[in-house]
Amino acid sequence: MQDIYQHIEDHIDEHIETLFRLVSQPSVSAQRLGFDKAPGLVKEIFESVGLETEIVPVPNDGLPSVYGHMAGERTDRTLLFYTHYDVQPTDPIELWESDPFRPERRGDRIYGRGISDDKGNIIARIAAMKAFNEVRGGLPCNLKFFAEGEEESGSPNLPGLIAQRGQDFSADACIWEGGGRNASNTPFIYLGLKGLLNVELSISRLSGDAHSSLATVLPSAAWRLLNALKTIKGDDDRVLIEGFYDDITPLSESEDAAITALPDETEELRRIHGVSDFVNEVEGEALRRKLYLTPTANIAGLTSGYQGAGFKTVLPAAASAKMDFRLVPEMRPLDVLEKLRKHLDRHGFSDIEINMIAGVIPYRTAMDAPWVKLVAETAEEIYGLKPEITPNMAGTGPMHDFGHGIGMPIATSGVDHPAHNIHAPNENITIDDFLLGAKQAALIIQRFAERGAE
Amino acid sequence: MQDIYQHIEDHIDEHIETLFRLVSQPSVSAQRLGFDKAPGLVKEIFESVGLETEIVPVPNDGLPSVYGHMAGERTDRTLLFYTHYDVQPTDPIELWESDPFRPERRGDRIYGRGISDDKGNIIARIAAMKAFNEVRGGLPCNLKFFAEGEEESGSPNLPGLIAQRGQDFSADACIWEGGGRNASNTPFIYLGLKGLLNVELSISRLSGDAHSSLATVLPSAAWRLLNALKTIKGDDDRVLIEGFYDDITPLSESEDAAITALPDETEELRRIHGVSDFVNEVEGEALRRKLYLTPTANIAGLTSGYQGAGFKTVLPAAASAKMDFRLVPEMRPLDVLEKLRKHLDRHGFSDIEINMIAGVIPYRTAMDAPWVKLVAETAEEIYGLKPEITPNMAGTGPMHDFGHGIGMPIATSGVDHPAHNIHAPNENITIDDFLLGAKQAALIIQRFAERGAE
Repeated sequence: MQDIYQHIEDHIDEHIETLFRLVSQPSVSAQRLGFDKAPGLVKEIFESVGLETEIVPVPNDGLPSVYGHMAGERTDRTLLFYTHYDVQPTDPIELWESDPFRPERRGDRIYGRGISDDKGNIIARIAAMKAFNEVRGGLPCNLKFFAEGEEESGSPNLPGLIAQRGQDFSADACIWEGGGRNASNTPFIYLGLKGLLNVELSISRLSGDAHSSLATVLPSAAWRLLNALKTIKGDDDRVLIEGFYDDITPLSESEDAAITALPDETEELRRIHGVSDFVNEVEGEALRRKLYLTPTANIAGLTSGYQGAGFKTVLPAAASAKMDFRLVPEMRPLDVLEKLRKHLDRHGFSDIEINMIAGVIPYRTAMDAPWVKLVAETAEEIYGLKPEITPNMAGTGPMHDFGHGIGMPIATSGVDHPAHNIHAPNENITIDDFLLGAKQAALIIQRFAERGAE
Repeated sequence: MQDIYQHIEDHIDEHIETLFRLVSQPSVSAQRLGFDKAPGLVKEIFESVGLETEIVPVPNDGLPSVYGHMAGERTDRTLLFYTHYDVQPTDPIELWESDPFRPERRGDRIYGRGISDDKGNIIARIAAMKAFNEVRGGLPCNLKFFAEGEEESGSPNLPGLIAQRGQDFSADACIWEGGGRNASNTPFIYLGLKGLLNVELSISRLSGDAHSSLATVLPSAAWRLLNALKTIKGDDDRVLIEGFYDDITPLSESEDAAITALPDETEELRRIHGVSDFVNEVEGEALRRKLYLTPTANIAGLTSGYQGAGFKTVLPAAASAKMDFRLVPEMRPLDVLEKLRKHLDRHGFSDIEINMIAGVIPYRTAMDAPWVKLVAETAEEIYGLKPEITPNMAGTGPMHDFGHGIGMPIATSGVDHPAHNIHAPNENITIDDFLLGAKQAALIIQRFAERGAE
């Protein structure tokens, strides 16, 4: 494989240039920003390495996916790379040290929105393909490359697309986005993702904002929302929605052991996020179990009234909160939505409107699949350390649609590192992260062509 | 007085033009917007009716006041008009049907920020002065005209200015801003205003926004703020800050009777604000007593995390709330601030920062002052109905500085009506409101010149 690795290293400037081009093109799915040009640019990049590519419309006028495929020497073995080309919003923009859509290098890091999640992964895999094409004259197996356009918005139309065209994307095995190294630089692989229910809770109590001197007698939307939210979570961080935890399934023995075997991330998380104490003062294994295995009720945004400089003596007519509930197997977003509605009604808050924004079903690939072993071996070879395997990550993605919907084993490799500030200001990646991710992608292609996933 | 009233009516187009000029000039004190030109424009308008005018610097580099004075026939009698030329922010700007700084007429109303509060009052009084000058060749008594530049920001530097130069503004009696007609078109006069403590409560728990998948273990600023706020007010609307109500003084018998005698505003408030039920389901006299005589703990703004379109899976690093506490005699803003700090500490929220933005002391002029009788008579003469006299209004203003600090009786007349949407989108006034306010100002000047305030 040295020839392939050497090609990737020799062409690093070209790869970073391509990555900068892709990051420079905004593609914020939450705001539908940049999608006049972004799918075309992804298609152009896919075609530059020989992928036969189409921009795939998704149901409900959603933001398109981009799908490419290319035959290789072993035509009976097909590998699917799942990625997404959409990115998170840049807000709070004032905390960025450089324009999120004008990538730049500072020290050994390059910065920009999506430069790690997930445009970095796209280009690392493209770099691996390019190396096979140019050094070996082609791929050793069939390859499919799926880049979604709505992952950061909860993949609302992916289940519909899979129902329509799932077989087009079917493969023997799948590499997901989002592997890489953890806080202690050990490679990690994960086999599952949490689900998600994202909602906006809102209430309007007046026909318009009123002068705050009337706050003695006119109802307050802000206090009302706050009182409703307060019923959702207890001081012990336990979600108080009736039946919220009912459908959680226990881990298998090997999954449980894998969680126990993971390294302690406590100090690293402390350092990166500048905190002294964690929720419920968890540390070590307890922190890990809470992080990976419990659902959340997070407030992602709170809005009411005047938020500018100085003050405005206003009684706001309306208030709203954006919440995301991360779900673990086998919780279901629509079921949690129904339970949330019942909970608010039961507590007298039937006037709080719930608007569901996104729902994603949680998923885990079985830990003993041969595909997991193959990917783990490539990680050890590239990074020189046995990988940590996590049954499911704290994050979310539409794995369920591919793993359960189409039916294939899924594991991860990638360019990730907890210091990348994904979804946050100053998202970044190092050249090293990129090179290691590209090399592992190449090795996975090679090993899969040799051994298959069975 | 018919000659004076006729002059005001004959020149109404000119007065509205002047009012439009003044409203077109932004003067948002909370944002320090427009103060390069606003004081100069006020000075120019003052000088146009013969007031010897100066732009008065205030302590702490605050936004200046504008002060004018002019001698009249009775040089031993001096009347002070208090107004303010600053306005509230225009937010939420999207609910305005026209540009707040491009006043326009729609039907029988004219619209713009400050067109009622308080630029309408300024120009109505200027119209009255102009009529005396042009019809009678001068004023019947001395007149002082004080236009503050920071009233909408809680008059933070007015106490300092009064301490330095209070005697320059002293008079035998004062007409405040903000009289006019109430919801049933009956003239009203008020003799006092609530005080105010305005604070921002804020908390930051992470070095930066984090991915919301970490919400299982990283502390949430939004939940923390919400839990702290929840301790401040009970479900029965009672403020739970220890000792909050201790310094409230009872009304005198005549003040109490005045409250009882006021008309029922329940239906009008329902209609204007589009509500079915009031706080604690108060109605009629109970509503009135709650409105005028109780303090508040209002949330004027709530901010945390992502508030744009769609969603962002973020765990926000920070959260904040703007609160205003309206205070009744003899509560004091600094004392309430101290009690709030102790309250939060006692409930384990010493990590919540409190930033005091403004404090105003509440004030009431004694109900039996001869000045109150004189102003009431002018109201009855102009509006044809006995005025309702309110011991103190639900709103706030720096009356304490003039009434207690300099020492003079204070009552109100003006152009107000509850339908004016002051402090809210689509602030407006009718031509009728303006004419009545201007005529009453003229009659007050005349009667005061004849009888004085003793």
